[in-house]
Amino acid sequence: MITLDMVYDAQKTLKGVVRETAMIHANKINENLYLKSENLQLTGSFKLRGAYYKVSTLTEEEKEKGVIAASAGNHAQGVALACTRMGVKSYICMPAYAPLAKIEATKSYGGEPILVPGTFDDAALEATRLVEEKGYTFVAPFNDEKVIAGQATIGLEILEQLPDVDTIVVQIGGGGLISGVAYAIKQLKPECKIIGVQTCATPSMAASREAGRVVKVEDASTIADGIHVLQPGDITFDMCEQYVDEIVTVTEDEIAVAILTLMEQQKTVAEGAGATSVAAVLAGKVETKGQKVCCIVSGGNIDVTMLNRVITRGLITTGRLTELTTKLVDKVGALQDMLKIITNVGANIVNINHERESIRVEVNGCLVHMILETRNVEHQERLLRELREAGYVIF
Amino acid sequence: MITLDMVYDAQKTLKGVVRETAMIHANKINENLYLKSENLQLTGSFKLRGAYYKVSTLTEEEKEKGVIAASAGNHAQGVALACTRMGVKSYICMPAYAPLAKIEATKSYGGEPILVPGTFDDAALEATRLVEEKGYTFVAPFNDEKVIAGQATIGLEILEQLPDVDTIVVQIGGGGLISGVAYAIKQLKPECKIIGVQTCATPSMAASREAGRVVKVEDASTIADGIHVLQPGDITFDMCEQYVDEIVTVTEDEIAVAILTLMEQQKTVAEGAGATSVAAVLAGKVETKGQKVCCIVSGGNIDVTMLNRVITRGLITTGRLTELTTKLVDKVGALQDMLKIITNVGANIVNINHERESIRVEVNGCLVHMILETRNVEHQERLLRELREAGYVIF
Repeated sequence: MITLDMVYDAQKTLKGVVRETAMIHANKINENLYLKSENLQLTGSFKLRGAYYKVSTLTEEEKEKGVIAASAGNHAQGVALACTRMGVKSYICMPAYAPLAKIEATKSYGGEPILVPGTFDDAALEATRLVEEKGYTFVAPFNDEKVIAGQATIGLEILEQLPDVDTIVVQIGGGGLISGVAYAIKQLKPECKIIGVQTCATPSMAASREAGRVVKVEDASTIADGIHVLQPGDITFDMCEQYVDEIVTVTEDEIAVAILTLMEQQKTVAEGAGATSVAAVLAGKVETKGQKVCCIVSGGNIDVTMLNRVITRGLITTGRLTELTTKLVDKVGALQDMLKIITNVGANIVNINHERESIRVEVNGCLVHMILETRNVEHQERLLRELREAGYVIF
Repeated sequence: MITLDMVYDAQKTLKGVVRETAMIHANKINENLYLKSENLQLTGSFKLRGAYYKVSTLTEEEKEKGVIAASAGNHAQGVALACTRMGVKSYICMPAYAPLAKIEATKSYGGEPILVPGTFDDAALEATRLVEEKGYTFVAPFNDEKVIAGQATIGLEILEQLPDVDTIVVQIGGGGLISGVAYAIKQLKPECKIIGVQTCATPSMAASREAGRVVKVEDASTIADGIHVLQPGDITFDMCEQYVDEIVTVTEDEIAVAILTLMEQQKTVAEGAGATSVAAVLAGKVETKGQKVCCIVSGGNIDVTMLNRVITRGLITTGRLTELTTKLVDKVGALQDMLKIITNVGANIVNINHERESIRVEVNGCLVHMILETRNVEHQERLLRELREAGYVIF
């Protein structure tokens, strides 16, 4: 069982190893909002904390044999750096299709990637097999009390940095982070509320809470790949039942808007999972009136090619980009007639694609696909209304 | 004339008004690199410092009448917030075509935008006219000793946060920031080197230094719009001559790579101008061996639609995206034959555009435009070599 002594022991162990990340007052987003910026942690996520504390508690013999983990993401990098710092060899099982950048990152922290054909489950099975065969110690990503105690140190730091915090908002994947933080907080400041956030895509802890037992949810894709976990652990489920006040869910668009807002207003880069806590606040799912709210920004390792898509998605959702397809009669001046309306409304053309040979339109027509810069949702709606009133069909 | 007393007075005045921004050890980029993160300053840039100190020194009568500035960027926001904090009315002349986001930002800080038809020069002329007509006080963006003294407070903070700094790298637009920082540093730690950075596009201070007098350079576009200044001031020119050791220039691609690197490695958002100092280091234009180097990241107000283009540009420059156009004979299987080579090299298709009706190819040919994910520059070169060896002409 996890104890407060374990959490303090973890804090002592991590001192000088992990960064005490900044508590940032995000007053441009919300006067009552504070960000615990674990995206600025070494390895770009909080995962180093739990991994380091876990490995530090191994026996000399276990350390000698080496450590293994299964992960294609932040846990891989956390375990790799933790082990390297302690002079322990680490092996990281990853699906063979894992992005090259993730494999390279793990190597750069001194871990040895083992590429396993198949899915993530196959990589996890291979790790289990190697534990048997080679005697490595397995470092679980979340369902382990030592790992949880490591993540709990974030709770202690929050109380030091923002003693009058009223609510802490924490993302949930497998539940390791929130279990640790909620445990520490409820021991030391029980009146502080803990709100968990999951994606609508894979709300495994929320579903388990509703079922009253650990359940597995259907797979679905999400930009918050860091909390893409289909089934929570039994330890983390029990701890969430005991210490977490409420679990809310956020949509993909809400996450995209949160990533964009953090970049524009706070100049900070969060990955999808890292931004879900802020997404819950921005979407009004967490009470901020008269409450000091601290969101954990758990990680910043977003793939930059993904970032392009997220920015576009966020701009569309907030009405600053408008994408539309319409049909024109193929005659001289048809495009110009429509552009006149667009110009009058004050929208700016980003991209235009005028396609005559489309199987979607009759022989004398053509399809126009446009991306326009607009000001906000009202402006976007006005644009679409004026086009419709002029007789254009918007697909 | 600027004095050290003025700089200390500015520091006292700014206390509790501006943020003492963090000094971040950017060890993932370079073990010897430190970032003075003025992109995390209120209003998203250092400009608040100079503007606030300048306005604080006005007489009660001048404050009563109000303040005017000409800017479509960070200076506008700095002046607006500075005035609002002191209860002074501010008017900001901007070109009418200024991006809506900039106009809104100025308003959000309490400034009153005055939209002037024409270019930026027209906006500046209008500001001068309004000074005459209405008796407003003009706050210059850089060529003013009070403004310079405000920016100089960054130099004091650097010495407090990183006393053993060897080199400070500072971007130059009009030269207000570097004049202040260089002055403070050379008074207090004369052995510390000050290196200025400009864009290759508009290197006005570098050209002036070479000419031995203030000169104006040709206009050219740059992603570092914050330092897009065609002619330095006479005060800033003289101070740079006296206190700046060297001025280097960086290309647009080098700036794009720096923005991308700051996002990926440091999870921080810099605008083009803000990243030029880091660009100079990454491009090897500043000695870092055995030297503690501090780069000022002067601002973070990058337009997010611009960010998309910058990310793409940075990925292409670092070989992680490859864009190519080639010609195929229009027969069954022609595309597949080429894709076989691409797959064998291990490149990943992002985008493919197969165009039969192009005036650029003969009747039986077609043009293929592709964007591919590659690993790095070597990988990109190998891909292109193998395609060429198989007989494809790459345009």
